[in-house]
Amino acid sequence: MDRISLAYGSGGKQTAELVKKIFLKNLYSEELSKLEDSAIIKNKNLKVAFTTDSYVVDPIFFPGGDIGRLCVCGTVNDISVSGAKIEAISLGFIIEEGLDISVLLKIVNSIKKTAKEAGVRIVTGDTKVVEKGKADKIFINTSGIGFFDSELNFSYSNVKKDDIIIINGEVGSHGIAVLNSRNKLGISGDIKSDVAPLNGLIDLIKRIPGIKCIKDVTRGGLITALNEISESCGFGAEIEEEKVPVADSVKSACEMLGIDPFYAANEGKIVVIASKKSAEKILVEMRKHKYGKKSAIIGRFNEDKHVSVKTLIGTVRIAQSMSGEQMPRIC
Amino acid sequence: MDRISLAYGSGGKQTAELVKKIFLKNLYSEELSKLEDSAIIKNKNLKVAFTTDSYVVDPIFFPGGDIGRLCVCGTVNDISVSGAKIEAISLGFIIEEGLDISVLLKIVNSIKKTAKEAGVRIVTGDTKVVEKGKADKIFINTSGIGFFDSELNFSYSNVKKDDIIIINGEVGSHGIAVLNSRNKLGISGDIKSDVAPLNGLIDLIKRIPGIKCIKDVTRGGLITALNEISESCGFGAEIEEEKVPVADSVKSACEMLGIDPFYAANEGKIVVIASKKSAEKILVEMRKHKYGKKSAIIGRFNEDKHVSVKTLIGTVRIAQSMSGEQMPRIC
Repeated sequence: MDRISLAYGSGGKQTAELVKKIFLKNLYSEELSKLEDSAIIKNKNLKVAFTTDSYVVDPIFFPGGDIGRLCVCGTVNDISVSGAKIEAISLGFIIEEGLDISVLLKIVNSIKKTAKEAGVRIVTGDTKVVEKGKADKIFINTSGIGFFDSELNFSYSNVKKDDIIIINGEVGSHGIAVLNSRNKLGISGDIKSDVAPLNGLIDLIKRIPGIKCIKDVTRGGLITALNEISESCGFGAEIEEEKVPVADSVKSACEMLGIDPFYAANEGKIVVIASKKSAEKILVEMRKHKYGKKSAIIGRFNEDKHVSVKTLIGTVRIAQSMSGEQMPRIC
Repeated sequence: MDRISLAYGSGGKQTAELVKKIFLKNLYSEELSKLEDSAIIKNKNLKVAFTTDSYVVDPIFFPGGDIGRLCVCGTVNDISVSGAKIEAISLGFIIEEGLDISVLLKIVNSIKKTAKEAGVRIVTGDTKVVEKGKADKIFINTSGIGFFDSELNFSYSNVKKDDIIIINGEVGSHGIAVLNSRNKLGISGDIKSDVAPLNGLIDLIKRIPGIKCIKDVTRGGLITALNEISESCGFGAEIEEEKVPVADSVKSACEMLGIDPFYAANEGKIVVIASKKSAEKILVEMRKHKYGKKSAIIGRFNEDKHVSVKTLIGTVRIAQSMSGEQMPRIC
């Protein structure tokens, strides 16, 4: 560790290293040490979920979405997976001098539309402008707060062996859509980002007993998300390759690019970890929601200390968190 | 309005225009429409203050502070002026590829020290890395939440004519320290930024009856801050030039640079607007605090519709919000 490389922002292994060695070591708090999608702040009888994310996606408009829709969904989802009800978000804009107002307006309208879909208010904001060449068009930070309307205590540390892993649909489309759009790879097939606010889907299931935790599956993809839960709870996880939904177009693009779709970014995916007893019931409910139609049970936690994938031909390979910088500025 | 210029991020007139015409018009919420330093979110019997700010200061280290100290203080102060007690902050880092880890560590240590001084926890964070040349070293977003430990309802709209304006010390040092350091102007005199967490000072006075509102005086300086209050409450304000504390070194630097110190940025200044009856008592208390030793009564609100300055020679000039881009990337 000497200089910051793109890998430190990929959301995989190097990001985790930076967070632990630099941020958590120096800025320790109990909430921060949990390294979950939201911090849960307790004060007297208040319990508030609080989260932050900066969005630097390149390009700012991509098939299926744009930085405006992304910055609302990412933060809504981070709050919602904690079990809290999203209440309000903030917007911090860093704009490069020279950006067309019409581009800004397009983004603001996308924010408006997505906030309406998610039922969330924008309550505070900030605007900074930097000289041409000192930023890339526009970066947006969205922080959010949520309140708990029921007694839920979702936490990665609740997860135990035999708990079931459910995902709400096909993985990898956001990462491939952005890469394709950025590099003009000309990949055919209609690959669109899955970027979506998942608070409605989560509201539908969160009071079903047996849910241990819900996790947003974003940078670093499915495998990195499962590794984060595994590290926190101390159990391993095994998923079955054939059970994980992947769109055919994403699958062939991934093959062409040499990318594993299980590491590709998502912006409308969650994993729900639940007891064996409740998993089927949760699955049925999830499939009723428009963002959960292709929900599937994809594996379970076990006594290992790692995440593994049972391949189509029946072999089992260990799958660590994403490493390197294969997907910079994906969100 | 066609393209975003640096003036739109100066915190003055153009920023206000952007906020009103683009953001508020499209993203309206009751909280956002107040345009105060923090949004106050009410939900059942909860009342939470929530704020966000991105920091893009150039240079990242300057006399008296750095981007780390700045990003904690700015957000702590935005929450504290609402009357809430700062509870927790988030940190969203956007880092340019190639930044020395040692530089990042220096900033993180400054954050740690300042958070300790302010008594605030860092509870959640995010790290993004962008390619070399796509950002300028490091940008930090700090959002914050605070809870109300007393029944306070500070708001610009509470201000009426005859209310007194108190400031907690000398103005303009942050702006001049940063400009001097950025442009190597070689201005002599020991000009240091005033960047400081003011929650301790505010705690000392906030329960004294008679306070109408407290406002952080940052980008755009004293005059812009007073204009914001004036626009919201519908009354004018008059300050007396000779009563506003300005350090001699800042005064001469401002003369040299052709900058009005009343428009220069601060990062450790507040104005307290209070009833005539309570002003003296508040002043006495403020002077007891290390960040309030030079507190002074500088003017009052009146029946005008604008902010004015009574000059040393007794003339009165109207003083509008800062216009143009004289101080880009000052915070």
